Amino acid sequence: MARDSHATKARLLDAALTEFATHGIAGARVDRIAEAADANKRLIYVYFGNKEQLFDHVMERALAAGAESVPFDVEDLPGYAGAIFDLLSGRPELMRLVLWKQLERPAATPAQQEAYAAKARALAAAQQAGRVDPAFEPTDILTMVLALSQAWFAAAGGPATEPDGSAWDARRRSAHRAAVVEAVGRLTAPPAPPGS
Amino acid sequence: MARDSHATKARLLDAALTEFATHGIAGARVDRIAEAADANKRLIYVYFGNKEQLFDHVMERALAAGAESVPFDVEDLPGYAGAIFDLLSGRPELMRLVLWKQLERPAATPAQQEAYAAKARALAAAQQAGRVDPAFEPTDILTMVLALSQAWFAAAGGPATEPDGSAWDARRRSAHRAAVVEAVGRLTAPPAPPGS
Repeated sequence: MARDSHATKARLLDAALTEFATHGIAGARVDRIAEAADANKRLIYVYFGNKEQLFDHVMERALAAGAESVPFDVEDLPGYAGAIFDLLSGRPELMRLVLWKQLERPAATPAQQEAYAAKARALAAAQQAGRVDPAFEPTDILTMVLALSQAWFAAAGGPATEPDGSAWDARRRSAHRAAVVEAVGRLTAPPAPPGS
Repeated sequence: MARDSHATKARLLDAALTEFATHGIAGARVDRIAEAADANKRLIYVYFGNKEQLFDHVMERALAAGAESVPFDVEDLPGYAGAIFDLLSGRPELMRLVLWKQLERPAATPAQQEAYAAKARALAAAQQAGRVDPAFEPTDILTMVLALSQAWFAAAGGPATEPDGSAWDARRRSAHRAAVVEAVGRLTAPPAPPGS
């Protein structure tokens, strides 16, 4: 019987994402991942290396998928922020993955550094061309846009919960999204030309 | 010999903060905390309860100390955000504590809910009085102000590190702080009166 290693790898990475999002890196158990993926635990080491390296693979794959479904758009930063809000709204496990990374494995991988640098270059060019407010440095814009897009998923009370403990309803969700979009606009729209 | 239980409690809470900030809740070990505090492990249970309850005590104490050193100031929200930035800059372990809480124990305690509600009421009154832009709901302002104040401590690369892996220097630190202050001003300053 032919072994479909591509499908097995994908199942392992899916199971690993769920395990890491739930328990973090130190708390994750490789045998639970293997069992959830219906695969031999040894294959994890063969395909991906140790648990930390497996986490890096999961993270790279999640970031690549995120960048594909929500491409960075320097011409519409409020829309980009709203799209990240929507992505995290539908997939709160991605926010957890990012938070665990910040705590347990904060150093950016070379691929992450390059993705970040490419966005910063695009922002600098847009500032040069007068399409983004030059008041902030490109990396500060990126940091703030991401922080605002993620804010409601990493806020007091827990995911999709108000600080008072009540769960989000449709009106609140939509107000939060509108706040992200409006806030990013205020931070990035170029100043109006004099006399306008 | 008289036992100074107040001092022992404070030593245990200090040691617990360090342990939780480093390892999180699941990863924290009560015997390491007792050893670091030079106290009997049994006293932790006597004074604070189980490990989760100990975490709640540590968190309440850290938030109370934070609120005392950086009081909420609805009349100067940019200054408040800058002061949070300074606090986290000097004590990055507080940011880690908050991140672990978001992942492992997200529900707000009653004291946290009340502190949040008090800030929201102050913001609503300031909006009513025309001193804060009424465009955003009070809880959305709080969420965004906190997210911006914390953004650089929870960003890609790790604490006090740029996304490109380089460590913060004094110029960058000061640019980041200025960006927080300016951004919070843009989101909260009341609109200029017509004709001004």
